[in-house]
Amino acid sequence: MLLRLLEKKDRELRERGIAWRLTGVATRRMGWLANANGFEVEALLANNLVVQTPPEVPAPHDVRTWLRLAKADVLFEATSLSPRDGQPAIDHIRAALETGAHAITANKGPIVHAYEELSSLADAKRRRFLFESTVMDGVPIFALFRENLPCIHLRGFRGILNSTTNVILSGMEEGLSFDESLAKAQQIGIAETDPSNDIEGWDAAVKVAALVRVLMDVPIRLEDIRREGIGKLSGEAVRLARKDGKPYKLVCRAQRTTHSVTASVRPEQVPLNDPLAWVAGTSSIVYFETDVFPGLAITENNPGLEATAYGMLADFVRAVKET
Amino acid sequence: MLLRLLEKKDRELRERGIAWRLTGVATRRMGWLANANGFEVEALLANNLVVQTPPEVPAPHDVRTWLRLAKADVLFEATSLSPRDGQPAIDHIRAALETGAHAITANKGPIVHAYEELSSLADAKRRRFLFESTVMDGVPIFALFRENLPCIHLRGFRGILNSTTNVILSGMEEGLSFDESLAKAQQIGIAETDPSNDIEGWDAAVKVAALVRVLMDVPIRLEDIRREGIGKLSGEAVRLARKDGKPYKLVCRAQRTTHSVTASVRPEQVPLNDPLAWVAGTSSIVYFETDVFPGLAITENNPGLEATAYGMLADFVRAVKET
Repeated sequence: MLLRLLEKKDRELRERGIAWRLTGVATRRMGWLANANGFEVEALLANNLVVQTPPEVPAPHDVRTWLRLAKADVLFEATSLSPRDGQPAIDHIRAALETGAHAITANKGPIVHAYEELSSLADAKRRRFLFESTVMDGVPIFALFRENLPCIHLRGFRGILNSTTNVILSGMEEGLSFDESLAKAQQIGIAETDPSNDIEGWDAAVKVAALVRVLMDVPIRLEDIRREGIGKLSGEAVRLARKDGKPYKLVCRAQRTTHSVTASVRPEQVPLNDPLAWVAGTSSIVYFETDVFPGLAITENNPGLEATAYGMLADFVRAVKET
Repeated sequence: MLLRLLEKKDRELRERGIAWRLTGVATRRMGWLANANGFEVEALLANNLVVQTPPEVPAPHDVRTWLRLAKADVLFEATSLSPRDGQPAIDHIRAALETGAHAITANKGPIVHAYEELSSLADAKRRRFLFESTVMDGVPIFALFRENLPCIHLRGFRGILNSTTNVILSGMEEGLSFDESLAKAQQIGIAETDPSNDIEGWDAAVKVAALVRVLMDVPIRLEDIRREGIGKLSGEAVRLARKDGKPYKLVCRAQRTTHSVTASVRPEQVPLNDPLAWVAGTSSIVYFETDVFPGLAITENNPGLEATAYGMLADFVRAVKET
């Protein structure tokens, strides 16, 4: 998806003085593939990512050799999330920064488990560690605070940040049981085969931890976030709540206290005059409370398929433009 | 307000390597006051802006002499809006840029009537012409698109951008007539003595024109925006609409067409599942439709008194940081 988007936006990128080449691909299925002269992207996309590495290029077997053979300037990291330890993403990002490449990730784990180390390393190497795609599919939340809200103090936030649970709750409101709604979400590809990361609130908690770490500058551990999933809600309870005008939402919260931050992820009933009540399906919202703007909300309605990839592309522009 | 905020955020500004001095003040009441050595801000604020210019400093009588005597690096321009021609703000900004100062304005008129000229002039002089405070009280709408959404195409937007009419409509929903609600809004200082700019949709139309000009890169004239105010709505009609679940809002719209943009400002009935329906009082919202994000909304709830001044402070940081 990112590759298609890079192709699609190639003209706009060149207008900004940015040219790019794909010199490495690594997936579980294909292993580590590198070609410093650049792969032919069109052929590669047409061929559904089955690449023929030229025979003269040695095949790398680990991330560092791969980065070196690819002569990578930028790494796009998108392994699947391991919320408990952030691996193997952390190792990949560390390797990229150490070899002098910018590291752009769609993976929240590294922010929660290694933000301090990776951002210091990036500073030391004068490279960028960027992660806009990790929260709200690439809507520029982190960049907004980093670049466009100078001298502002974030006091707290609340929002709906996990689309799988929001889709399941929407289905339950329309008459399904929890199990039926989950099955439907899996059928349409929204929920994963093992949906526990979403259902139990892990995914949302990792997002909260990432926002707290970066935007509030407080290192928070996942176990310090009060976390409750949606698995205990019955279809009847969800429908009754909506009928009473206080629908259930899996609400994420963080609030600054005197010396730290308290945070939670749990089902809450929200009143209809609260914009959270109207965020349905795969849409998401986050409400920031700052010293200057007491209620600044960003809503993403019906994200397109390209949204996450776009977050990585925007990070790419940031990284190569500013260094 | 800006001056108080600059004082309040002085430490954060210094941490960013930004020091400032107030070397000129100009208001209708006080005339042009300049002192290149800097006024004493504390005394000035305590004294409610009545400044004693040192007797040895000659008193300027026009904006160019004033800028020169103040040795201004940055002009903060906040004259009241003249929607029809954008003056005198345009003359002030032009003078500032020509004398080598950054120009930061809270005034929408110059964007609608002289954007091309002033931004070219700023480029030529390697200064910035910035105007974040003109729409949504300083919420970084322009910066978001300019800096954080690279390579994106804005197809259109809709929103609620005038707080006076929104406050009046809220009052009418609560039982007042149009005249009563207007009088109340004037009493609490939301509506001006001559409220026609707001009531007739001029203020909203100028904001639409500014967003279209800058974010969609299309020069649009005010007379090309279909404009209808809220003056013809009765209290009864407004209450009935809310009771029917389709409340009236003064809705701003712009949509790209094949060769141009169509735009309107007029009362529309919006359904309750539309977030616009829940934007009450002085809050505002804008919903952007882009190629990557089909529905990206920014909401500002209950803006603080400092919000507009903050937009100018953030522009100040942008201007001096990047040049």
